[in-house]
Amino acid sequence: MVNFFELAAPGVRGLTPYQPGKPIGELERELGLSNIVKLASNENPLGPSPKALEAALAASKEVELYPDGGGFELKAALSERLGVAAERITLGNGSSDVLEFAARVFVTPDNEVMFSQHSFALYPIFTQTLGAQAVATPASRWGNDLDAMRRAVTPRTRLIFIANPNNPTGTWLGSAALESFIRDLPREVLVVVDEAYFEYASHPAMGAADYPDTMAWVERYPNLIVARTFSKCYGLAGLRVGYSVSHPEVADLMNRVRPPFNVSSVALAAARAALEDEAHLRRSLELNAQGMQQLVAAFAERGLAYIPSVGNFVCVDMGRPAAPLYDALLRQGVIVRPVGNYGMPNHLRVTVGTPEQNAVFLRALDAVLAA
Amino acid sequence: MVNFFELAAPGVRGLTPYQPGKPIGELERELGLSNIVKLASNENPLGPSPKALEAALAASKEVELYPDGGGFELKAALSERLGVAAERITLGNGSSDVLEFAARVFVTPDNEVMFSQHSFALYPIFTQTLGAQAVATPASRWGNDLDAMRRAVTPRTRLIFIANPNNPTGTWLGSAALESFIRDLPREVLVVVDEAYFEYASHPAMGAADYPDTMAWVERYPNLIVARTFSKCYGLAGLRVGYSVSHPEVADLMNRVRPPFNVSSVALAAARAALEDEAHLRRSLELNAQGMQQLVAAFAERGLAYIPSVGNFVCVDMGRPAAPLYDALLRQGVIVRPVGNYGMPNHLRVTVGTPEQNAVFLRALDAVLAA
Repeated sequence: MVNFFELAAPGVRGLTPYQPGKPIGELERELGLSNIVKLASNENPLGPSPKALEAALAASKEVELYPDGGGFELKAALSERLGVAAERITLGNGSSDVLEFAARVFVTPDNEVMFSQHSFALYPIFTQTLGAQAVATPASRWGNDLDAMRRAVTPRTRLIFIANPNNPTGTWLGSAALESFIRDLPREVLVVVDEAYFEYASHPAMGAADYPDTMAWVERYPNLIVARTFSKCYGLAGLRVGYSVSHPEVADLMNRVRPPFNVSSVALAAARAALEDEAHLRRSLELNAQGMQQLVAAFAERGLAYIPSVGNFVCVDMGRPAAPLYDALLRQGVIVRPVGNYGMPNHLRVTVGTPEQNAVFLRALDAVLAA
Repeated sequence: MVNFFELAAPGVRGLTPYQPGKPIGELERELGLSNIVKLASNENPLGPSPKALEAALAASKEVELYPDGGGFELKAALSERLGVAAERITLGNGSSDVLEFAARVFVTPDNEVMFSQHSFALYPIFTQTLGAQAVATPASRWGNDLDAMRRAVTPRTRLIFIANPNNPTGTWLGSAALESFIRDLPREVLVVVDEAYFEYASHPAMGAADYPDTMAWVERYPNLIVARTFSKCYGLAGLRVGYSVSHPEVADLMNRVRPPFNVSSVALAAARAALEDEAHLRRSLELNAQGMQQLVAAFAERGLAYIPSVGNFVCVDMGRPAAPLYDALLRQGVIVRPVGNYGMPNHLRVTVGTPEQNAVFLRALDAVLAA
């Protein structure tokens, strides 16, 4: 028989699939547990705005119709909210979709794609799929080291992914440092600033006073692409919707590789309604700031080091291989995220939940550490 | 400023976006009309099964959680229904998603991708995106000409797209002809049989008695990929879900380029429930068979030639450039599909609607032809 792996495009042959957080249903099937607490995928424990849910239900009534492939209404709402022209926006089936469009538009096997050590697992996967060269620069204090990145730029560098705040570590880059990095780059190098956790990082209680306002930069830097999502603080991960803001010509190219109906009609409607519910967003961000305090105080009490984070998650250093502790927590009905595949074998990434979920996690952690 | 088009990958530079059917909302905005009848995108006029809708609403309650990236439950249901192992299935954000995965896995700029003249517009777009060579073989009586395709195979041919029934023409290939074509192909040439309209074509009233049962072939031909969708007779176009069935090794590769959460949780749940509602499917197929009779009888009465179709749509030959007639129908509040971009400037493609929608279209057509 034909060996299909040998037939596959060179980049595809070397791909290993992304490892998502364990779904609740899967753990239920495997261990016969219920009442599972999942703090593994940085989801909003409050869920979406009730208005978003209402819009989703209304849109379900016409689900036999194809979505508006241009996403006219959601783009108009984003345009108004962000103060950018609609022609700068590209809609994605989650923001990972727009990250991949950027790579597919600009990256060929001759190019290098740069990102930091301990950064989002999809960046090397997108690079590998395209058969391009991944350049992972060393991290500095678990975050993006802009000096190391600057030094690593070569004539083959075409795209740089910077998660800010960084996932899975929660570290962030301040405005002055990030803008000077972008300003100094050759103009033919595209920079994707992945702001999946932007709303959390911008909240005053998180203490990142110098967190950048990149929307103000897109007119200044035509090579800048800012990506955001409705999967995190807007609580719509299950519906898959995100977007990027870029130079209109870049958006035009990204929209050419975008499949015509990549965002569902239900997601378009829910996202638009979610944008309008500022009270729900505020509650979500406040809950997160409080929950983060609860978790890091508990880590400190237990003598566990953690990486200060401005996202809705925090990496805690277990001081020993974390994989067995992850497994033991699963058996307690708590799903967190092992990050050994991010070069962090001793850390666990924990999503900030409700006060009750955090307490369940901490009790399970104590039980596991005592065992 | 940098010219971003010059920076883009060679295939991407030449892309022109897919032209979807005009959304109802867009026509409302443009012409200030209401009560619009859309027969442009081959959607099910009955809508989805109420059970699918119920499942979608139930899934909306947990929409803050990421979908099950593996699609465990939908794959299990499909596996049982189709009698194929779950490891052969790849889930897509619509079936166009899986068509593109097949191309991205196997096609490099050195390859040729083959499809027929007058076939689905996304095939050349996927080919162009990858910078590969498109080979469009001449059609025979508006359909795929398998002899022409066989003759066009070269050592560079890697992938062949065959829509059966063909979109936009509605023509179909019989079992013996299609199987002998696949049997004779070099084993390293992948064939995607795009069966978006499979359920319609299989219905006895459509008269395609020799329409193939390709699920029985996937064990025989490792290079065969069959793609199907929930967007057409299952009435879930707005939710975006489709799938392919192939050799497990091919599915493994396709799943590597598949983004981890490409199908929403709401779509996964709705599709699974839709599969179970056989009564709704039967009603949808019967309505289509009757509506097709209504339309073709009316075309015959009016002396308009049409292409016999086994889908839920039919191409009618207006005997003159159809674009002005399309525009005139829009002003009557009826959206059909111009197919000039398919090399069919005198045809309009009309989706089979309810008896009432078909009657509205026919009245509008008479008004337009009389003007």
